[in-house]
Amino acid sequence: MYKCNRNRLQSLIEQFSQFGATTNGGVTRLSLSKEDVLARDYFCAICKELGMDIQIDDMANIYATLPGKKDCPPIVLGSHLDSVEKGGRFDGVLGILTAIEAIRTLKENDIELEIPLMLVNFTNEEGARFDPAMMSSGVIASKFSKEKMLQSVDKNGTSFQEALQASGYEGKQGNRLTEALAYIELHIEQGPVLEAKQREIGVVEGVLGMVCYEITVTGESNHAGTTPMSMRKDPMIEASRIISSLHEELGEIDEELVFTFGRMHVTPNIHTVIPHEVVFTIDSRHQNPAVMRKVEKLLTGLALEKNGCYIRPVKLWGRETVFFDTAICNEVEQACQYFGYSCHRMFSGAGHDAQYIASFIPSAMIFVPSINGKSHCEEEETTFEDCAKGADVLLETVLTLQTKFSVDKKQTLNS
Amino acid sequence: MYKCNRNRLQSLIEQFSQFGATTNGGVTRLSLSKEDVLARDYFCAICKELGMDIQIDDMANIYATLPGKKDCPPIVLGSHLDSVEKGGRFDGVLGILTAIEAIRTLKENDIELEIPLMLVNFTNEEGARFDPAMMSSGVIASKFSKEKMLQSVDKNGTSFQEALQASGYEGKQGNRLTEALAYIELHIEQGPVLEAKQREIGVVEGVLGMVCYEITVTGESNHAGTTPMSMRKDPMIEASRIISSLHEELGEIDEELVFTFGRMHVTPNIHTVIPHEVVFTIDSRHQNPAVMRKVEKLLTGLALEKNGCYIRPVKLWGRETVFFDTAICNEVEQACQYFGYSCHRMFSGAGHDAQYIASFIPSAMIFVPSINGKSHCEEEETTFEDCAKGADVLLETVLTLQTKFSVDKKQTLNS
Repeated sequence: MYKCNRNRLQSLIEQFSQFGATTNGGVTRLSLSKEDVLARDYFCAICKELGMDIQIDDMANIYATLPGKKDCPPIVLGSHLDSVEKGGRFDGVLGILTAIEAIRTLKENDIELEIPLMLVNFTNEEGARFDPAMMSSGVIASKFSKEKMLQSVDKNGTSFQEALQASGYEGKQGNRLTEALAYIELHIEQGPVLEAKQREIGVVEGVLGMVCYEITVTGESNHAGTTPMSMRKDPMIEASRIISSLHEELGEIDEELVFTFGRMHVTPNIHTVIPHEVVFTIDSRHQNPAVMRKVEKLLTGLALEKNGCYIRPVKLWGRETVFFDTAICNEVEQACQYFGYSCHRMFSGAGHDAQYIASFIPSAMIFVPSINGKSHCEEEETTFEDCAKGADVLLETVLTLQTKFSVDKKQTLNS
Repeated sequence: MYKCNRNRLQSLIEQFSQFGATTNGGVTRLSLSKEDVLARDYFCAICKELGMDIQIDDMANIYATLPGKKDCPPIVLGSHLDSVEKGGRFDGVLGILTAIEAIRTLKENDIELEIPLMLVNFTNEEGARFDPAMMSSGVIASKFSKEKMLQSVDKNGTSFQEALQASGYEGKQGNRLTEALAYIELHIEQGPVLEAKQREIGVVEGVLGMVCYEITVTGESNHAGTTPMSMRKDPMIEASRIISSLHEELGEIDEELVFTFGRMHVTPNIHTVIPHEVVFTIDSRHQNPAVMRKVEKLLTGLALEKNGCYIRPVKLWGRETVFFDTAICNEVEQACQYFGYSCHRMFSGAGHDAQYIASFIPSAMIFVPSINGKSHCEEEETTFEDCAKGADVLLETVLTLQTKFSVDKKQTLNS
């Protein structure tokens, strides 16, 4: 049982938070920006210093590998260095930095690895500069077409392809991650559950399935002063009723179901005019596909016409629940118990690179608590104590997997 | 009993609809624009042709007067030639054109007036180019400060003062309308009531009192996927509940009460983020001040905190109900009966110049039906038949008032 160095980790986090630091204590480190490239350079320098071999693939994903005695596929730790605009100091980067701290702890304890240990930085996880999010893990997992991704354009008109070439981090397709024994991603929770439950570590069993619908309610625009109530077709009233009643009905399906009416556009949006159209979104997530089917049944079952208004629900997108590898999750939980850290098995409500990597490598995630559940903002915070506990669990899990994979000729945990 | 000439009126309406004609059959004739000036020039030419004397005041209001045998304050007919952007061919201009047709009918029947008859075109009634609406009637009724109005700026940065000077229609303050025996304004209804009730003429008894509130619901922004429902402070849910329940409660106060939730802004308005703030307006109108007090009591009595959200209602503005002159309304109704035109006594839900003029001149309005209640759009429509009936009633009312005022030395109807 090796404990990581809390102070050394804190200092590393503070160093990286300088790349794109904002005046309010956050960071703006958009993918392949000058700030991101500086962070990448420093990341590579540290890895080289630790004796790791660095490879870069055609999506600018960086792979730093610490060799093992065995010539076999590696155990992989990964996350991302990019951030959203005015994001926090922990989202993404913490997965990289706890992995570096784990490797430093290995080194200072002269632990030699049987199985190679790889550390990955995925490009453009946030999707804040180039749509979509989790772009590069998606490409290597064959979820997205690389050609399409190259054409994704930022708000200044720069394409991903141009940014890739300008960054100096465009590598070879042959370097892509294709095979590994396990993939583990440590991340801040970005939600309030661990804090509320007073647990130190989240053992992440998967990523919630989700659907996003856009509901258009069309009525008839008229003068606010001259149109009697009985002669109105008011989509704002109908939209409000639909939201209120969906809130009731969805709330009864399952207490773990989450749903959000995040976006609404009213046309023409003038105080003296009855709106013609109200368009709003509903995003809903749950780990159980049967629950998600009930949600979709409710949404697609909305009355198509009510009080003179037409109601049209359109599915914008959905994703199936991603289930992580139970055996790795069990090892993470076991590691928590070694250290006496309280933990909570949970699903991630947010998307992560691990959800794509899980399609071809047995994967799991480790969450550390987010203070007030805040993320994607400058107030994002996690105590350095909690960060270090995450690093402890990450390292312990790696060491256990090392042992298991070394004795197991088939190199699978579940067999 | 003199009937106006339907075909002549139609031809006049069609002529004026060329000033600022849009491709879809509407007009864009913003106040003091090139198009408005062309319409003004033609209006003045017609009035001169009819032997009327033209005066212009410092707000570019045009007064065309047909002298009477008596040297006394005039009976005034008025409306406005300006339109909103992509407005209709009838809003405003119809009040001017039916008055011209009435005067033409007087002329061809060789009727000599006892009391002078004045026709007014008010500047910038719509407020579509320069805020506020009913600007110039408001100035001469001392509702607005002229100095402030001169500084009102259109979307291109041109001030009202600059537009006034450039128009060639800046006259003298001494020419302002200050005294008259009566003011009558004919206008399209801009609502669906006359059509629904199958009435030909609206006898307008006043303008509805109104209030406009802005209600701000503040919650807490969080990630749509990672925040359990029980830990949310969701202003969208609260706003929807407030709108739904206000709709119920206001609906029970009085069946003639109208109220509209026309504008809503959601922040940050992203489908994957629980909103931080939802701001919406409610505009409500009724003729009875006691009913309006009940509305305000409901709005100001909203719970200030609910389910973790703060609710702040702020009154943006209000106007008291304007009551028109009952005696003139009775004459309008009498005129309808002469012709056998069905009529309906009603209040205007929209604002009109008459509401300001009524503060110093006994006033009334005549409505003609709007097809499908449409206005402020290119589809705005009234049959020429109904326009002509309006002109008949306008002329008949003028003639009756002429007689009454001529025999009544005090020159008031009510005494």
